[in-house]
Amino acid sequence: MPHNAATMCQLLGMNCNTPTDVTFSFSGFAQRGGRTDHHADGWGIAFFEGRGLRHFVDHQPAFSSPVAELIRRYPIKSRSVIAHIRKATQGEIALENCHPFVRELWGRYWVFAHNGDLKDFQPRLHASFRPVGSTDSERAFCWLMQEIWKSHAGVPSVAELTLTLRELAPQIARHGPFNFLLSNGEALWAHCSTNLFHVERRHPFAHAQLADEDLSIDFARHTTPQDRVAVVVTAPLTTNEAWTQFQPGELRVFVDGVAAG
Amino acid sequence: MPHNAATMCQLLGMNCNTPTDVTFSFSGFAQRGGRTDHHADGWGIAFFEGRGLRHFVDHQPAFSSPVAELIRRYPIKSRSVIAHIRKATQGEIALENCHPFVRELWGRYWVFAHNGDLKDFQPRLHASFRPVGSTDSERAFCWLMQEIWKSHAGVPSVAELTLTLRELAPQIARHGPFNFLLSNGEALWAHCSTNLFHVERRHPFAHAQLADEDLSIDFARHTTPQDRVAVVVTAPLTTNEAWTQFQPGELRVFVDGVAAG
Repeated sequence: MPHNAATMCQLLGMNCNTPTDVTFSFSGFAQRGGRTDHHADGWGIAFFEGRGLRHFVDHQPAFSSPVAELIRRYPIKSRSVIAHIRKATQGEIALENCHPFVRELWGRYWVFAHNGDLKDFQPRLHASFRPVGSTDSERAFCWLMQEIWKSHAGVPSVAELTLTLRELAPQIARHGPFNFLLSNGEALWAHCSTNLFHVERRHPFAHAQLADEDLSIDFARHTTPQDRVAVVVTAPLTTNEAWTQFQPGELRVFVDGVAAG
Repeated sequence: MPHNAATMCQLLGMNCNTPTDVTFSFSGFAQRGGRTDHHADGWGIAFFEGRGLRHFVDHQPAFSSPVAELIRRYPIKSRSVIAHIRKATQGEIALENCHPFVRELWGRYWVFAHNGDLKDFQPRLHASFRPVGSTDSERAFCWLMQEIWKSHAGVPSVAELTLTLRELAPQIARHGPFNFLLSNGEALWAHCSTNLFHVERRHPFAHAQLADEDLSIDFARHTTPQDRVAVVVTAPLTTNEAWTQFQPGELRVFVDGVAAG
Protein backbone atom coordinates (compact mmCIF):
# COMPACT_ATOMS: atom_id res chain seq x y z
CA MET A 1 0.00 0.00 0.00
CA PRO A 2 2.22 2.89 0.99
CA HIS A 3 4.04 2.69 -2.29
CA ASN A 4 3.71 6.23 -3.42
CA ALA A 5 5.95 9.07 -2.49
CA ALA A 6 3.42 10.84 -0.33
CA THR A 7 3.30 8.01 2.20
CA MET A 8 6.98 7.26 1.97
CA CYS A 9 8.49 6.00 5.19
CA GLN A 10 10.39 8.93 6.61
CA LEU A 11 10.46 8.00 10.26
CA LEU A 12 10.85 4.53 11.68
CA GLY A 13 11.14 3.63 15.34
CA MET A 14 11.38 0.26 17.05
CA ASN A 15 11.27 -0.64 20.69
CA CYS A 16 11.64 -4.23 21.94
CA ASN A 17 11.75 -6.05 25.25
CA THR A 18 14.77 -8.15 24.28
CA PRO A 19 17.69 -7.26 22.03
CA THR A 20 16.17 -8.43 18.80
CA ASP A 21 17.94 -9.66 15.71
CA VAL A 22 16.58 -7.47 12.98
CA THR A 23 17.80 -6.99 9.47
CA PHE A 24 16.95 -3.98 7.43
CA SER A 25 16.74 -5.43 4.00
CA PHE A 26 16.82 -1.99 2.38
CA SER A 27 15.50 -3.67 -0.74
CA GLY A 28 13.04 -0.90 -1.40
CA PHE A 29 14.27 1.62 1.16
CA ALA A 30 17.62 1.86 -0.56
CA GLN A 31 16.03 2.08 -3.99
CA ARG A 32 13.66 4.80 -2.95
CA GLY A 33 16.33 6.93 -1.38
CA GLY A 34 17.19 8.85 -4.51
CA ARG A 35 16.25 6.62 -7.39
CA THR A 36 12.53 6.10 -7.47
CA ASP A 37 11.64 8.74 -4.97
CA HIS A 38 12.39 12.31 -4.02
CA HIS A 39 13.69 11.46 -0.56
CA ALA A 40 17.24 11.79 -1.69
CA ASP A 41 18.71 14.23 0.77
CA GLY A 42 20.30 11.88 3.24
CA TRP A 43 19.26 9.30 5.74
CA GLY A 44 20.36 7.86 9.03
CA ILE A 45 19.81 5.19 11.63
CA ALA A 46 20.79 4.84 15.26
CA PHE A 47 20.50 1.80 17.45
CA PHE A 48 21.23 1.31 21.09
CA GLU A 49 23.23 -1.64 22.33
CA GLY A 50 22.97 -1.44 26.09
CA ARG A 51 24.03 2.10 26.98
CA GLY A 52 26.14 2.27 23.83
CA LEU A 53 24.96 3.63 20.52
CA ARG A 54 25.70 2.97 16.89
CA HIS A 55 24.94 5.97 14.76
CA PHE A 56 25.05 5.95 10.96
CA VAL A 57 24.24 8.97 8.86
CA ASP A 58 24.84 9.64 5.22
CA HIS A 59 24.04 12.53 2.94
CA GLN A 60 24.49 10.27 -0.04
CA PRO A 61 21.27 8.77 -1.39
CA ALA A 62 20.59 5.47 0.35
CA PHE A 63 20.63 3.50 -2.89
CA SER A 64 24.27 4.37 -3.60
CA SER A 65 25.56 4.63 -0.05
CA PRO A 66 28.20 2.19 1.19
CA VAL A 67 26.86 2.74 4.68
CA ALA A 68 23.40 1.61 3.58
CA GLU A 69 25.09 -1.45 2.13
CA LEU A 70 26.58 -2.13 5.56
CA ILE A 71 23.27 -1.74 7.37
CA ARG A 72 21.64 -4.08 4.89
CA ARG A 73 24.08 -6.80 5.81
CA TYR A 74 24.56 -5.95 9.46
CA PRO A 75 22.98 -8.20 12.11
CA ILE A 76 21.49 -5.53 14.34
CA LYS A 77 20.69 -6.65 17.86
CA SER A 78 18.96 -3.82 19.58
CA ARG A 79 16.07 -2.89 21.84
CA SER A 80 15.76 0.59 20.45
CA VAL A 81 16.14 1.83 16.89
CA ILE A 82 15.38 5.15 15.17
CA ALA A 83 15.73 5.57 11.41
CA HIS A 84 15.05 8.47 9.09
CA ILE A 85 15.13 9.36 5.42
CA ARG A 86 15.50 13.03 4.75
CA LYS A 87 13.77 15.28 2.26
CA ALA A 88 15.42 18.63 2.82
CA THR A 89 12.98 21.38 3.72
CA GLN A 90 15.38 23.54 5.72
CA GLY A 91 19.15 23.25 5.83
CA GLU A 92 21.39 22.30 2.95
CA ILE A 93 22.19 18.72 1.99
CA ALA A 94 25.10 18.00 4.29
CA LEU A 95 26.18 15.31 6.70
CA GLU A 96 25.55 17.52 9.74
CA ASN A 97 21.92 17.94 8.69
CA CYS A 98 21.10 14.22 8.56
CA HIS A 99 18.83 12.73 11.21
CA PRO A 100 18.86 11.14 13.70
CA PHE A 101 20.73 13.58 15.93
CA VAL A 102 22.49 12.53 19.12
CA ARG A 103 23.29 14.32 22.37
CA GLU A 104 24.46 13.14 25.79
CA LEU A 105 22.60 14.13 28.96
CA TRP A 106 22.98 12.68 32.46
CA GLY A 107 25.30 9.98 31.15
CA ARG A 108 22.83 8.75 28.54
CA TYR A 109 22.72 9.16 24.80
CA TRP A 110 19.53 10.70 23.44
CA VAL A 111 18.50 10.18 19.83
CA PHE A 112 16.00 12.29 17.89
CA ALA A 113 14.51 12.32 14.39
CA HIS A 114 11.86 14.63 13.01
CA ASN A 115 9.46 14.69 10.09
CA GLY A 116 7.88 18.05 9.36
CA ASP A 117 8.69 21.67 8.74
CA LEU A 118 8.86 24.29 11.49
CA LYS A 119 8.40 27.93 10.53
CA ASP A 120 9.95 30.76 12.52
CA PHE A 121 11.16 28.47 15.25
CA GLN A 122 14.13 30.33 16.73
CA PRO A 123 14.10 29.40 20.40
CA ARG A 124 16.50 30.86 22.93
CA LEU A 125 19.18 28.21 23.45
CA HIS A 126 20.88 29.21 26.68
CA ALA A 127 22.00 25.79 27.92
CA SER A 128 24.60 23.40 26.61
CA PHE A 129 22.77 22.08 23.57
CA ARG A 130 23.48 23.85 20.29
CA PRO A 131 22.79 22.78 16.73
CA VAL A 132 25.79 21.81 14.63
CA GLY A 133 23.85 21.94 11.37
CA SER A 134 21.23 24.32 10.07
CA THR A 135 17.94 22.40 10.29
CA ASP A 136 14.80 23.37 12.16
CA SER A 137 14.81 19.76 13.43
CA GLU A 138 18.15 19.92 15.25
CA ARG A 139 17.11 23.28 16.70
CA ALA A 140 13.94 21.67 18.03
CA PHE A 141 15.95 18.78 19.47
CA CYS A 142 18.37 21.13 21.23
CA TRP A 143 15.49 23.10 22.72
CA LEU A 144 13.78 19.88 23.87
CA MET A 145 17.00 18.69 25.53
CA GLN A 146 17.46 22.06 27.21
CA GLU A 147 13.92 22.05 28.59
CA ILE A 148 14.19 18.42 29.70
CA TRP A 149 17.44 19.29 31.45
CA LYS A 150 15.78 22.25 33.17
CA SER A 151 12.77 20.17 34.23
CA HIS A 152 14.62 17.32 35.92
CA ALA A 153 17.66 16.90 38.17
CA GLY A 154 18.68 13.58 36.63
CA VAL A 155 17.29 10.90 34.33
CA PRO A 156 13.55 11.02 35.09
CA SER A 157 11.29 8.00 35.10
CA VAL A 158 9.65 7.19 31.79
CA ALA A 159 6.29 8.41 33.12
CA GLU A 160 7.74 11.71 34.34
CA LEU A 161 9.51 12.39 31.08
CA THR A 162 6.35 11.57 29.16
CA LEU A 163 4.52 14.28 31.11
CA THR A 164 7.31 16.77 30.42
CA LEU A 165 7.27 15.98 26.71
CA ARG A 166 3.49 16.40 26.59
CA GLU A 167 4.02 19.95 27.85
CA LEU A 168 6.92 20.72 25.54
CA ALA A 169 5.83 19.22 22.22
CA PRO A 170 2.85 21.55 21.61
CA GLN A 171 5.11 24.59 22.07
CA ILE A 172 7.11 23.46 19.06
CA ALA A 173 4.18 22.00 17.11
CA ARG A 174 2.55 25.40 16.82
CA HIS A 175 5.35 26.28 14.40
CA GLY A 176 4.45 23.50 11.96
CA PRO A 177 4.30 19.72 11.51
CA PHE A 178 6.25 18.10 14.33
CA ASN A 179 6.21 14.34 14.03
CA PHE A 180 9.17 13.11 16.03
CA LEU A 181 10.80 10.07 17.60
CA LEU A 182 12.99 10.30 20.70
CA SER A 183 14.80 7.58 22.61
CA ASN A 184 17.31 7.30 25.45
CA GLY A 185 17.57 3.53 24.98
CA GLU A 186 15.09 2.89 27.79
CA ALA A 187 11.93 3.99 25.98
CA LEU A 188 10.74 5.31 22.63
CA TRP A 189 8.66 8.49 22.61
CA ALA A 190 6.65 9.32 19.50
CA HIS A 191 4.77 12.53 18.82
CA CYS A 192 2.38 13.03 15.94
CA SER A 193 1.31 16.24 14.24
CA THR A 194 0.17 14.82 10.93
CA ASN A 195 1.18 11.24 10.05
CA LEU A 196 2.27 8.53 12.43
CA PHE A 197 1.18 4.91 12.95
CA HIS A 198 2.15 2.20 15.38
CA VAL A 199 1.70 -1.49 15.86
CA GLU A 200 2.67 -3.92 18.60
CA ARG A 201 3.91 -7.24 17.53
CA ARG A 202 4.39 -10.52 19.37
CA HIS A 203 5.87 -13.92 18.82
CA PRO A 204 5.54 -15.66 16.43
CA PHE A 205 6.48 -12.94 13.99
CA ALA A 206 6.29 -15.10 10.88
CA HIS A 207 2.71 -14.20 9.99
CA ALA A 208 3.14 -10.56 10.76
CA GLN A 209 6.45 -10.10 9.01
CA LEU A 210 6.86 -6.59 7.75
CA ALA A 211 7.08 -6.46 4.00
CA ASP A 212 7.09 -3.28 2.04
CA GLU A 213 8.86 -1.88 -0.92
CA ASP A 214 10.19 0.89 1.27
CA LEU A 215 11.56 -1.19 4.03
CA SER A 216 11.37 -4.71 5.30
CA ILE A 217 12.31 -5.88 8.71
CA ASP A 218 13.00 -9.54 9.17
CA PHE A 219 12.63 -10.69 12.71
CA ALA A 220 15.18 -13.36 12.35
CA ARG A 221 15.78 -16.66 14.05
CA HIS A 222 15.80 -16.69 17.82
CA THR A 223 12.52 -15.15 18.88
CA THR A 224 10.80 -16.46 21.96
CA PRO A 225 7.14 -16.39 23.06
CA GLN A 226 7.98 -13.50 25.39
CA ASP A 227 9.22 -11.24 22.62
CA ARG A 228 7.42 -7.95 22.13
CA VAL A 229 8.19 -5.36 19.48
CA ALA A 230 6.56 -1.98 18.93
CA VAL A 231 7.02 -0.29 15.56
CA VAL A 232 6.23 3.37 14.83
CA VAL A 233 6.26 4.68 11.26
CA THR A 234 5.15 7.58 9.12
CA ALA A 235 2.94 5.19 7.13
CA PRO A 236 1.89 1.57 7.73
CA LEU A 237 4.32 -1.01 6.41
CA THR A 238 1.89 -3.91 6.09
CA THR A 239 -1.69 -4.44 5.00
CA ASN A 240 -2.49 -7.39 7.25
CA GLU A 241 -1.90 -5.83 10.64
CA ALA A 242 -3.87 -3.53 12.88
CA TRP A 243 -1.93 -0.30 12.62
CA THR A 244 -3.16 2.39 14.94
CA GLN A 245 -3.05 5.92 13.64
CA PHE A 246 -1.90 8.59 16.09
CA GLN A 247 -4.21 11.50 16.68
CA PRO A 248 -2.84 14.94 15.80
CA GLY A 249 -1.09 16.23 18.92
CA GLU A 250 -0.80 12.78 20.46
CA LEU A 251 2.35 11.68 22.24
CA ARG A 252 2.89 8.03 23.10
CA VAL A 253 5.69 6.15 24.79
CA PHE A 254 6.77 2.56 24.26
CA VAL A 255 8.68 0.47 26.78
CA ASP A 256 9.67 -3.18 26.39
CA GLY A 257 7.83 -3.35 23.10
CA VAL A 258 4.50 -2.23 24.52
CA ALA A 259 2.67 1.12 24.58
CA ALA A 260 3.15 2.48 28.10
CA GLY A 261 1.19 5.68 27.86
CA MET B 1 59.56 -2.15 12.84
CA PRO B 2 56.49 -1.57 15.00
CA HIS B 3 55.32 -5.10 14.43
CA ASN B 4 55.20 -6.32 17.97
CA ALA B 5 52.37 -5.90 20.38
CA ALA B 6 54.14 -3.38 22.57
CA THR B 7 54.33 -0.78 19.81
CA MET B 8 50.93 -1.62 18.41
CA CYS B 9 49.10 1.34 16.88
CA GLN B 10 46.50 2.29 19.41
CA LEU B 11 45.96 5.92 18.50
CA LEU B 12 45.94 7.38 15.03
CA GLY B 13 45.16 10.95 14.11
CA MET B 14 45.21 12.71 10.76
CA ASN B 15 44.83 16.36 9.91
CA CYS B 16 44.86 17.63 6.31
CA ASN B 17 44.48 20.94 4.52
CA THR B 18 42.06 19.54 1.93
CA PRO B 19 39.49 16.79 2.27
CA THR B 20 41.73 13.92 1.35
CA ASP B 21 40.76 10.61 -0.17
CA VAL B 22 42.21 8.10 2.20
CA THR B 23 41.57 4.41 2.47
CA PHE B 24 42.23 2.45 5.58
CA SER B 25 43.27 -0.84 4.15
CA PHE B 26 42.93 -2.55 7.53
CA SER B 27 45.04 -5.33 6.11
CA GLY B 28 47.04 -5.69 9.27
CA PHE B 29 44.99 -3.44 11.55
CA ALA B 30 41.99 -5.72 11.20
CA GLN B 31 44.09 -8.84 11.65
CA ARG B 32 45.74 -7.51 14.77
CA GLY B 33 42.50 -6.52 16.41
CA GLY B 34 41.89 -9.84 18.09
CA ARG B 35 43.70 -12.43 16.06
CA THR B 36 47.42 -11.85 16.22
CA ASP B 37 47.36 -9.32 19.00
CA HIS B 38 45.82 -8.66 22.37
CA HIS B 39 44.12 -5.42 21.32
CA ALA B 40 40.81 -7.16 21.00
CA ASP B 41 38.56 -5.07 23.17
CA GLY B 42 36.99 -2.82 20.58
CA TRP B 43 37.99 -0.09 18.24
CA GLY B 44 36.61 3.00 16.64
CA ILE B 45 37.13 5.75 14.12
CA ALA B 46 35.61 9.18 13.62
CA PHE B 47 36.03 11.48 10.68
CA PHE B 48 34.76 14.95 10.08
CA GLU B 49 33.11 15.94 6.84
CA GLY B 50 32.66 19.68 7.11
CA ARG B 51 30.89 20.26 10.41
CA GLY B 52 29.37 16.79 10.18
CA LEU B 53 30.86 13.68 11.69
CA ARG B 54 30.89 10.00 10.91
CA HIS B 55 31.48 7.91 13.99
CA PHE B 56 32.03 4.17 13.94
CA VAL B 57 32.68 2.13 17.04
CA ASP B 58 32.62 -1.59 17.60
CA HIS B 59 33.29 -3.80 20.57
CA GLN B 60 33.77 -6.74 18.24
CA PRO B 61 37.39 -7.44 17.31
CA ALA B 62 38.34 -5.49 14.20
CA PHE B 63 39.22 -8.62 12.25
CA SER B 64 35.67 -9.98 12.46
CA SER B 65 33.74 -6.71 12.50
CA PRO B 66 31.37 -5.88 9.65
CA VAL B 67 31.96 -2.22 10.44
CA ALA B 68 35.71 -2.66 9.92
CA GLU B 69 34.85 -4.27 6.62
CA LEU B 70 32.91 -1.13 5.70
CA ILE B 71 35.73 1.21 6.68
CA ARG B 72 38.16 -0.89 4.68
CA ARG B 73 36.13 -0.29 1.54
CA TYR B 74 34.85 3.18 2.32
CA PRO B 75 36.29 6.13 0.40
CA ILE B 76 36.86 8.49 3.28
CA LYS B 77 37.19 12.14 2.33
CA SER B 78 38.11 14.03 5.44
CA ARG B 79 40.35 16.74 6.85
CA SER B 80 40.31 15.30 10.33
CA VAL B 81 40.35 11.68 11.48
CA ILE B 82 40.83 10.01 14.86
CA ALA B 83 41.06 6.23 15.20
CA HIS B 84 41.63 3.95 18.16
CA ILE B 85 42.04 0.28 19.00
CA ARG B 86 41.19 -0.57 22.55
CA LYS B 87 42.90 -2.80 25.06
CA ALA B 88 40.63 -2.64 28.08
CA THR B 89 42.38 -1.43 31.22
CA GLN B 90 39.32 0.05 32.93
CA GLY B 91 35.69 -0.49 31.99
CA GLU B 92 34.18 -3.68 30.65
CA ILE B 93 34.19 -4.63 26.97
CA ALA B 94 31.09 -2.83 25.77
CA LEU B 95 30.08 -0.54 22.95
CA GLU B 96 29.77 2.48 25.22
CA ASN B 97 33.42 2.06 26.28
CA CYS B 98 34.87 2.20 22.76
CA HIS B 99 36.86 5.24 21.70
CA PRO B 100 36.67 7.73 20.14
CA PHE B 101 34.05 9.54 22.23
CA VAL B 102 31.96 12.41 20.90
CA ARG B 103 30.30 15.41 22.53
CA GLU B 104 28.78 18.61 21.19
CA LEU B 105 29.87 22.01 22.50
CA TRP B 106 29.11 25.44 21.03
CA GLY B 107 27.55 23.84 17.96
CA ARG B 108 30.63 21.75 17.16
CA TYR B 109 31.33 18.08 17.56
CA TRP B 110 34.40 17.23 19.64
CA VAL B 111 36.12 13.88 19.28
CA PHE B 112 38.51 12.33 21.79
CA ALA B 113 40.57 9.14 22.06
CA HIS B 114 42.99 8.13 24.81
CA ASN B 115 45.80 5.69 25.28
CA GLY B 116 46.91 5.10 28.83
CA ASP B 117 45.59 4.22 32.26
CA LEU B 118 44.51 6.81 34.83
CA LYS B 119 44.50 5.81 38.48
CA ASP B 120 42.17 7.41 41.02
CA PHE B 121 40.89 9.97 38.55
CA GLN B 122 37.43 10.84 39.87
CA PRO B 123 36.99 14.50 38.98
CA ARG B 124 33.97 16.54 40.01
CA LEU B 125 31.73 16.68 36.94
CA HIS B 126 29.33 19.52 37.64
CA ALA B 127 28.61 20.69 34.09
CA SER B 128 26.72 19.03 31.26
CA PHE B 129 29.27 16.40 30.27
CA ARG B 130 28.86 12.98 31.88
CA PRO B 131 30.33 9.64 30.92
CA VAL B 132 27.95 7.10 29.43
CA GLY B 133 30.39 4.22 29.89
CA SER B 134 32.76 3.30 32.70
CA THR B 135 36.21 4.16 31.37
CA ASP B 136 38.78 6.50 32.89
CA SER B 137 39.15 7.87 29.35
CA GLU B 138 35.59 9.08 28.91
CA ARG B 139 35.75 10.56 32.42
CA ALA B 140 38.88 12.48 31.39
CA PHE B 141 37.17 13.65 28.20
CA CYS B 142 34.11 14.89 30.11
CA TRP B 143 36.31 16.79 32.56
CA LEU B 144 38.31 18.32 29.69
CA MET B 145 35.11 19.44 27.95
CA GLN B 146 33.79 20.89 31.20
CA GLU B 147 36.97 22.86 31.83
CA ILE B 148 37.14 24.03 28.20
CA TRP B 149 33.53 25.18 28.50
CA LYS B 150 34.34 27.05 31.72
CA SER B 151 37.42 28.68 30.19
CA HIS B 152 35.82 30.13 27.06
CA ALA B 153 32.56 31.83 26.16
CA GLY B 154 32.40 30.27 22.69
CA VAL B 155 34.61 28.34 20.28
CA PRO B 156 38.08 29.71 21.06
CA SER B 157 40.78 30.23 18.48
CA VAL B 158 43.10 27.28 17.95
CA ALA B 159 45.90 29.13 19.74
CA GLU B 160 43.73 29.96 22.74
CA LEU B 161 42.46 26.42 23.08
CA THR B 162 46.00 25.11 22.83
CA LEU B 163 46.98 27.26 25.82
CA THR B 164 43.97 26.01 27.79
CA LEU B 165 44.78 22.37 27.01
CA ARG B 166 48.40 22.89 28.07
CA GLU B 167 47.06 23.93 31.48
CA LEU B 168 44.52 21.11 31.74
CA ALA B 169 46.42 18.08 30.42
CA PRO B 170 49.01 17.92 33.24
CA GLN B 171 46.25 17.86 35.84
CA ILE B 172 45.01 14.59 34.36
CA ALA B 173 48.44 13.24 33.43
CA ARG B 174 49.49 13.13 37.06
CA HIS B 175 47.07 10.21 37.41
CA GLY B 176 48.83 8.07 34.82
CA PRO B 177 49.70 7.79 31.12
CA PHE B 178 47.59 10.28 29.22
CA ASN B 179 48.31 10.13 25.52
CA PHE B 180 45.33 11.64 23.79
CA LEU B 181 43.99 13.02 20.53
CA LEU B 182 41.28 15.69 20.37
CA SER B 183 39.66 17.35 17.39
CA ASN B 184 36.78 19.72 16.69
CA GLY B 185 37.25 19.35 12.95
CA GLU B 186 39.26 22.57 12.75
CA ALA B 187 42.46 21.29 14.37
CA LEU B 188 43.97 18.15 15.86
CA TRP B 189 45.44 18.36 19.36
CA ALA B 190 47.80 15.63 20.52
CA HIS B 191 49.19 15.17 24.00
CA CYS B 192 51.94 12.72 24.92
CA SER B 193 52.72 11.11 28.24
CA THR B 194 54.65 8.11 27.02
CA ASN B 195 54.43 7.20 23.32
CA LEU B 196 53.43 9.46 20.47
CA PHE B 197 55.00 10.29 17.11
CA HIS B 198 54.10 12.60 14.29
CA VAL B 199 55.10 13.27 10.73
CA GLU B 200 54.10 15.91 8.19
CA ARG B 201 53.66 14.73 4.68
CA ARG B 202 53.42 16.58 1.39
CA HIS B 203 52.67 15.91 -2.23
CA PRO B 204 53.70 13.65 -3.88
CA PHE B 205 52.77 11.02 -1.38
CA ALA B 206 53.87 8.06 -3.46
CA HIS B 207 57.35 7.75 -2.00
CA ALA B 208 56.21 8.32 1.52
CA GLN B 209 53.19 6.05 1.40
CA LEU B 210 52.46 4.60 4.77
CA ALA B 211 52.83 0.88 4.83
CA ASP B 212 52.63 -1.18 7.95
CA GLU B 213 51.17 -4.44 9.02
CA ASP B 214 49.06 -2.60 11.53
CA LEU B 215 47.61 -0.04 9.24
CA SER B 216 48.17 1.36 5.82
CA ILE B 217 46.84 4.58 4.51
CA ASP B 218 46.69 5.04 0.78
CA PHE B 219 46.63 8.61 -0.28
CA ALA B 220 44.62 7.94 -3.32
CA ARG B 221 44.36 9.58 -6.67
CA HIS B 222 43.71 13.27 -6.74
CA THR B 223 46.41 14.83 -4.62
CA THR B 224 47.75 18.21 -5.60
CA PRO B 225 51.08 19.94 -4.88
CA GLN B 226 49.35 21.98 -2.18
CA ASP B 227 48.26 18.96 -0.15
CA ARG B 228 49.54 18.69 3.41
CA VAL B 229 48.83 15.85 5.80
CA ALA B 230 49.92 15.49 9.42
CA VAL B 231 49.79 12.03 10.98
CA VAL B 232 50.06 11.32 14.71
CA VAL B 233 50.41 7.76 16.00
CA THR B 234 51.38 5.72 19.03
CA ALA B 235 54.28 4.23 17.06
CA PRO B 236 55.81 5.15 13.68
CA LEU B 237 54.15 3.51 10.72
CA THR B 238 57.07 3.70 8.30
CA THR B 239 60.80 3.29 8.43
CA ASN B 240 61.69 5.73 5.65
CA GLU B 241 60.25 8.91 7.08
CA ALA B 242 61.38 11.38 9.67
CA TRP B 243 58.97 10.68 12.51
CA THR B 244 59.30 13.09 15.40
CA GLN B 245 58.82 11.68 18.85
CA PHE B 246 56.81 13.77 21.28
CA GLN B 247 58.44 14.66 24.55
CA PRO B 248 56.68 13.43 27.69
CA GLY B 249 54.22 16.15 28.67
CA GLU B 250 54.27 17.73 25.23
CA LEU B 251 51.07 18.98 23.60
CA ARG B 252 51.03 19.86 19.91
CA VAL B 253 48.34 21.12 17.59
CA PHE B 254 48.01 20.53 13.85
CA VAL B 255 46.08 22.77 11.49
CA ASP B 256 45.80 22.34 7.72
CA GLY B 257 48.20 19.41 7.86
CA VAL B 258 50.97 21.35 9.56
CA ALA B 259 52.17 21.62 13.17
CA ALA B 260 50.87 24.94 14.43
CA GLY B 261 52.27 24.91 17.92
